[in-house]
Amino acid sequence: MPGMTIRLGRNQYGKAEVRVVAVDRSSARHTLVDLNVSSSLRGDFTAAHTAGDNAHVVATDTQKNTVFAFARDGIASPEAFGLRLARHFAGAHDWITGARIGIESYGWSRIPVGGRPHDHAFSRDGGEVRTAVVTVDGDGPDADVHVLAGLTGLVVLKTTGSEFWGFPRDRYTTLAETRDRILATAVTARWRYTSADLDWDTAFAGARTALLEAFAGTHSLALQQSLYAMGEAALERNPDIAEIRLSLPNKHHFLQDLSAFGLDNPDIVYHADDRPYGLIEGTVERDDVPPAPAAWEGTPGFC
Amino acid sequence: MPGMTIRLGRNQYGKAEVRVVAVDRSSARHTLVDLNVSSSLRGDFTAAHTAGDNAHVVATDTQKNTVFAFARDGIASPEAFGLRLARHFAGAHDWITGARIGIESYGWSRIPVGGRPHDHAFSRDGGEVRTAVVTVDGDGPDADVHVLAGLTGLVVLKTTGSEFWGFPRDRYTTLAETRDRILATAVTARWRYTSADLDWDTAFAGARTALLEAFAGTHSLALQQSLYAMGEAALERNPDIAEIRLSLPNKHHFLQDLSAFGLDNPDIVYHADDRPYGLIEGTVERDDVPPAPAAWEGTPGFC
Amino acid sequence: MPGMTIRLGRNQYGKAEVRVVAVDRSSARHTLVDLNVSSSLRGDFTAAHTAGDNAHVVATDTQKNTVFAFARDGIASPEAFGLRLARHFAGAHDWITGARIGIESYGWSRIPVGGRPHDHAFSRDGGEVRTAVVTVDGDGPDADVHVLAGLTGLVVLKTTGSEFWGFPRDRYTTLAETRDRILATAVTARWRYTSADLDWDTAFAGARTALLEAFAGTHSLALQQSLYAMGEAALERNPDIAEIRLSLPNKHHFLQDLSAFGLDNPDIVYHADDRPYGLIEGTVERDDVPPAPAAWEGTPGFC
Amino acid sequence: MPGMTIRLGRNQYGKAEVRVVAVDRSSARHTLVDLNVSSSLRGDFTAAHTAGDNAHVVATDTQKNTVFAFARDGIASPEAFGLRLARHFAGAHDWITGARIGIESYGWSRIPVGGRPHDHAFSRDGGEVRTAVVTVDGDGPDADVHVLAGLTGLVVLKTTGSEFWGFPRDRYTTLAETRDRILATAVTARWRYTSADLDWDTAFAGARTALLEAFAGTHSLALQQSLYAMGEAALERNPDIAEIRLSLPNKHHFLQDLSAFGLDNPDIVYHADDRPYGLIEGTVERDDVPPAPAAWEGTPGFC
Repeated sequence: MPGMTIRLGRNQYGKAEVRVVAVDRSSARHTLVDLNVSSSLRGDFTAAHTAGDNAHVVATDTQKNTVFAFARDGIASPEAFGLRLARHFAGAHDWITGARIGIESYGWSRIPVGGRPHDHAFSRDGGEVRTAVVTVDGDGPDADVHVLAGLTGLVVLKTTGSEFWGFPRDRYTTLAETRDRILATAVTARWRYTSADLDWDTAFAGARTALLEAFAGTHSLALQQSLYAMGEAALERNPDIAEIRLSLPNKHHFLQDLSAFGLDNPDIVYHADDRPYGLIEGTVERDDVPPAPAAWEGTPGFC
Repeated sequence: MPGMTIRLGRNQYGKAEVRVVAVDRSSARHTLVDLNVSSSLRGDFTAAHTAGDNAHVVATDTQKNTVFAFARDGIASPEAFGLRLARHFAGAHDWITGARIGIESYGWSRIPVGGRPHDHAFSRDGGEVRTAVVTVDGDGPDADVHVLAGLTGLVVLKTTGSEFWGFPRDRYTTLAETRDRILATAVTARWRYTSADLDWDTAFAGARTALLEAFAGTHSLALQQSLYAMGEAALERNPDIAEIRLSLPNKHHFLQDLSAFGLDNPDIVYHADDRPYGLIEGTVERDDVPPAPAAWEGTPGFC
Repeated sequence: MPGMTIRLGRNQYGKAEVRVVAVDRSSARHTLVDLNVSSSLRGDFTAAHTAGDNAHVVATDTQKNTVFAFARDGIASPEAFGLRLARHFAGAHDWITGARIGIESYGWSRIPVGGRPHDHAFSRDGGEVRTAVVTVDGDGPDADVHVLAGLTGLVVLKTTGSEFWGFPRDRYTTLAETRDRILATAVTARWRYTSADLDWDTAFAGARTALLEAFAGTHSLALQQSLYAMGEAALERNPDIAEIRLSLPNKHHFLQDLSAFGLDNPDIVYHADDRPYGLIEGTVERDDVPPAPAAWEGTPGFC
Repeated sequence: MPGMTIRLGRNQYGKAEVRVVAVDRSSARHTLVDLNVSSSLRGDFTAAHTAGDNAHVVATDTQKNTVFAFARDGIASPEAFGLRLARHFAGAHDWITGARIGIESYGWSRIPVGGRPHDHAFSRDGGEVRTAVVTVDGDGPDADVHVLAGLTGLVVLKTTGSEFWGFPRDRYTTLAETRDRILATAVTARWRYTSADLDWDTAFAGARTALLEAFAGTHSLALQQSLYAMGEAALERNPDIAEIRLSLPNKHHFLQDLSAFGLDNPDIVYHADDRPYGLIEGTVERDDVPPAPAAWEGTPGFC
């Protein structure tokens, strides 16, 4: 096992979690965009690894500066901002072959004062986060460009309309079948567009609505069934979405047994459990769209 | 220093973070209440500490069971549920002198489907949490009863209408004065009612609205000024509130210097910083209401 | 309810979580101190609250700068650094009546290389954090000075030597008695010294050892008994400790019932549960030392 | 875009975060293993997704039960336990094609009492977590079996012996070059063994030592150089390791400018920053070992 058989494999580097906030004061009715931006560069960085030669290493501090500088012209949407940054980095030097921009976007709503939305005072929207991932491989018009949109932290729950029965039983099976349970999950979804030129905010809102309405409207025999219905709804609504990946933890709500206290419990009192939890992961896709593994490189999740 | 000079001082114990969810299915339009309940008992538990004698120790498992059993009859509001539980525990045994119930309440909104709120599908409201603390000392009609309501995790931001200048300068002062900055904070508020018999949900909603509107409407020369205006608004709106304690981290948004890149930055691009942060804590109170330190025992925060 | 009855109550403000790291390179064998420092000032800040007048408001940015500047001369120990800072702030202006410095200290150990501790490479010690709180009220030699030391996040467990039985049973009691259970907790402890001039590191190490040895050595009939034994041990070891407050979550490890699978489980397989958990809080104190509520102002925890 | 073009893509499901603790009391000197186990099954679950037919869905509750039941015979090591579980699930039904077991292992050390390690009292080791991922595709002797070991949360720092200079400068570059800086990171590493029959604990300890010693011993011109040296050391030490993937956040410690206060700062006082941070990710591999993408399916991280 001579040392010469050891080599550098795949690698990337960048600046993670640049917290940039851009305010538009062009009218009295201000707007703001609140992002967490992470950049990663891919290319030939072998000398940095093997010899500490940084001639190819665009400093992560420079990447951070670039994010702030680009925000000066306005951010528009996470996807549009990611495209600008990824194309810039991918084309910055001949040794850079590609760039990935990951963005989290935090929503803000106008505070109502006397029933009217305020011009410049906002409250942050809960735990849900909008996400975008832009990957650009190559430079100029021939570059491969991929855009993922998504969301995470969208916690949803149905108080009825969920069953679970008919599963196989083996030596280790003790779970009772149920025809009525609480179904709750925290949706993480990412979907891939086949276009890099869309009305991003409208496309996002449409997919989000499709996911929510399908979750609510599906009488669920399995969380897998809800997952598929949600993915299918997103694809049916928007022909520019090629595939969607969903990760749905089954946030168990167990009916509490109150019989020891002389009480019945007709689907009223539940214990919300932390761990363990089921975890259902799946892709819903069009069969006529070629896969694009490059779009998903470095994005967590199975599928 | 003989060992006999050492003794047990103040103490309490209980079960923390019972995650109880109660569903009301009495009509097709379901509702749910989602709580995190912590109970603490106070009284004579000396023998448990010094001799391991548990004759006085109502098991924390029993406390948990009681929470679930009481939820069978409906939770109504966090404050009402806390009152039922605290009165029960405080009067359960003669060696128990008091009980404290702390509650976090998570909000859920109906998912709109085709524009109409769904009957039994919900999404969880963001990061904001409604809180309640009920303390009962003694048993029966002579018991001292205190109710705190509050909220935490309400993140708010103003894009203008905030200044900071006129502060003293010493050897260690480098901060520039500003006539226009972003002001952002995550509100933690707790207020004390002088009544134990209110329409709790209405009172909570009113105080929350007062806080939000005062934050939005105050042209702020100091975060302290916003704090006072918020507290004052809550007290002015509701005569049953005796005092309010506010903890407001100053979530700094620093204007990013873009001059190195040949760019100006007329209040457009900011960096949202994590740490350190300012922390402003204060009480706003009525001068004709006696203080009630027992109401605040064991609740974090200065004041 | 005229508005004139509303007034400002107790308040404080400061800069929270200044992450200062100081390296001592005075010999080839470097050392480092890694702190998270929070300062709070108390005094007359009414005008800032009611009129936005900042003439009394030492900017939190100035407080941050002061922390870094004072670190230039070395930090020595968290307690000593807190004393320097608190005395400085408390005496800085006549309208400031007192200051509180809260510190978290993160430990680092030398990385062993070939069995020898490295001169300048370190790994951070786990989840345990050393804490200090210094409060100074007044200025000069007549000031009231209080020093709390402590630790948090010290997770300990005994695989035997813990029982729980003899507790009262009521309608809501279902817990079985046990003569052998796992006992686990995450220790948060804070103790008050009666001196402001000690060998702080030695005192800390002694108290920590006392806590650990008492936890390990106590055959526990109740977590309360372990708590008291731990506190007593700390006080017996060090006459400069007047009182100690302990908060011990009972991190439940439930024996898993394997009988449905035809297996016994003689205290082998457990499920570590997250929530709910028992929470035991208590003070152990000397009866001949006057209490010092000012030392504990603004520090979370009952007692 | 007819609906028929939509189909289920890749998917898996399982039970996440089963917190199993196994105690060995076979001698007076107890030992314990503390794991967080997640199982995922792969195979034909289409009917569950498209029709809510659960005939193929081994309940996640059953998977949880299996984890506990298997622990009855002892856990040995995370890798060995993962192999037992993965082989069981992969061979449980003909519609199951494979299984992935992900494990986090928390370390515990004996509490020293009077200088001697205690027989049954332990304290938990910090923030570092040992990890294992076992993937089995197929059943019986022909199955493809992959074992990854690793660690996460190992925070390391060098107070000197780190430089960063020679990087390219463009319009957005403002960073100064440095010949001496603090280098700190939180190591996440995963490595792939080419054998499924090793002394797992010894192999883990060896890799961990190699990583630590290489971090400490490398005079670093770039964090990439440290990454490569660390990976290379692990591979050189153990011929059974085919490749290692490292993710190293650059936890910036910025030298604090004290000149405004009339103070110099010769590499003494630093500010530990939270965000943004550099993020360096890379693989070090043997060139004579075929890649095994199946081993990494569903494991976060680039490469």
